[in-house]
Amino acid sequence: MEPELIKFVLTIAYDGTPYAGWQIQKVGLGVQQLVEEALAKLFPSAPRVHSSSRTDTGVHAIGMVVHVEIPKTELRLPDPRLMLAINAFLPLTIRVMSAKRCSASFHARFNATGKQYRYYIWNAPAMNPLLVQRAWHIPKALDIDSMSRAAQKVIGKHDFKSFAGTRSYEMDSTVRTVQKMAIKKEDRLITVIIEGDGFLYKMCRGLVGTLVQVGSGKLDKDSLSTILEARDRTAAGMTAPAHGLVLWKVFYRKGKS
Amino acid sequence: MEPELIKFVLTIAYDGTPYAGWQIQKVGLGVQQLVEEALAKLFPSAPRVHSSSRTDTGVHAIGMVVHVEIPKTELRLPDPRLMLAINAFLPLTIRVMSAKRCSASFHARFNATGKQYRYYIWNAPAMNPLLVQRAWHIPKALDIDSMSRAAQKVIGKHDFKSFAGTRSYEMDSTVRTVQKMAIKKEDRLITVIIEGDGFLYKMCRGLVGTLVQVGSGKLDKDSLSTILEARDRTAAGMTAPAHGLVLWKVFYRKGKS
Repeated sequence: MEPELIKFVLTIAYDGTPYAGWQIQKVGLGVQQLVEEALAKLFPSAPRVHSSSRTDTGVHAIGMVVHVEIPKTELRLPDPRLMLAINAFLPLTIRVMSAKRCSASFHARFNATGKQYRYYIWNAPAMNPLLVQRAWHIPKALDIDSMSRAAQKVIGKHDFKSFAGTRSYEMDSTVRTVQKMAIKKEDRLITVIIEGDGFLYKMCRGLVGTLVQVGSGKLDKDSLSTILEARDRTAAGMTAPAHGLVLWKVFYRKGKS
Repeated sequence: MEPELIKFVLTIAYDGTPYAGWQIQKVGLGVQQLVEEALAKLFPSAPRVHSSSRTDTGVHAIGMVVHVEIPKTELRLPDPRLMLAINAFLPLTIRVMSAKRCSASFHARFNATGKQYRYYIWNAPAMNPLLVQRAWHIPKALDIDSMSRAAQKVIGKHDFKSFAGTRSYEMDSTVRTVQKMAIKKEDRLITVIIEGDGFLYKMCRGLVGTLVQVGSGKLDKDSLSTILEARDRTAAGMTAPAHGLVLWKVFYRKGKS
């Protein structure tokens, strides 16, 4: 007889700086590995986690969502202690922010309806020492209005092949819907908020890198449409560095987590 | 004949984590020492800097203001290169954010009309790994409304003796005017913005620590008035830890910097 499994959904935050991304790597340390090692210290079955997303080397997360199944017989902690117990076995760069039971049918990846990423840019001649490894430093003043107008061209359902790293060429479809692409500036800190139903490999960073080239006058604000139509990575601008990007939130239908 | 001196005003940002505060220390490394060492590498006269403020061990700054006098004969760089040249000799934890000439009569401390500090609190069961050493972790939910009402009692001209570290007892007056004490909450991040004409030693952290005790129900929201009237440090609440505090901005009268 199979042991009864209890499914939990965990929200995980991490500072991506010391890690080779989310996924378990052959070379380098993935965040997933440390989370699974912490779980193995609590549960003899060493449960695997199933994530909503992967993040690249250096990319951060505040709202990564994963699910994990734990045999009922191994669950000796009351649920409210689970988060604290896992965190006790994790470095301070990785924290479980919440842990709660979910339905047996829930799947962190397949049930996700969308994601929000945030990208931070420090736009001033000298870098802010409080945002090292948290924001991309662009010394020259960016034209936020041009960037905002360019961002409007991205919203909607498009073939984002031009904004995808080569890895995604293998995938069936490069069509995605971007619901939101907003640029906020507060003092010298620019935040780009990107929401979509899904993202191709390096798509967020390709979009932000291209927007920054628009903001610095290297690309025209209308070039976003041309780039999208080209369906060719070489048509787009640069890829923004990983350390400015944060996986902010994963969306699910109500009652689906 | 005295050499002609050119006065500059520098705005300096730093991550206070590795430093024993701003001021040059007998034990430990002050930020001031590193700034003066960088200046000594550029200017043989090894000019001293005069700061608007001191910050404690672990406290950060984004807008520390200092002035410095450089002999005209030693100024071989065009002014716009000065900031970059000093930064080249500083660790990434300390950055000169701007450097410009000011009038010979300007004094970073004596001409300051006020200061703004910001204090960050991460209010969630688990700490945000992206805000380690940047925000105070308070796991239990704080009552922001009570904190905001309590903060209102602080605004105005008061004797802040109850909120000052012992060091300030030696000073002539403990009367200060707080112009602003605002509490913002965005998601799980609480920001306390404090503006005043001057601050006693550990006053900001005493105010924030007391507010947090109001927010967690350990002190009544009206207790701020009682504490102020007591003029006694033992009447106030706890001192908030240094790593949540940032010297945000120093104010000067227009044309005075």
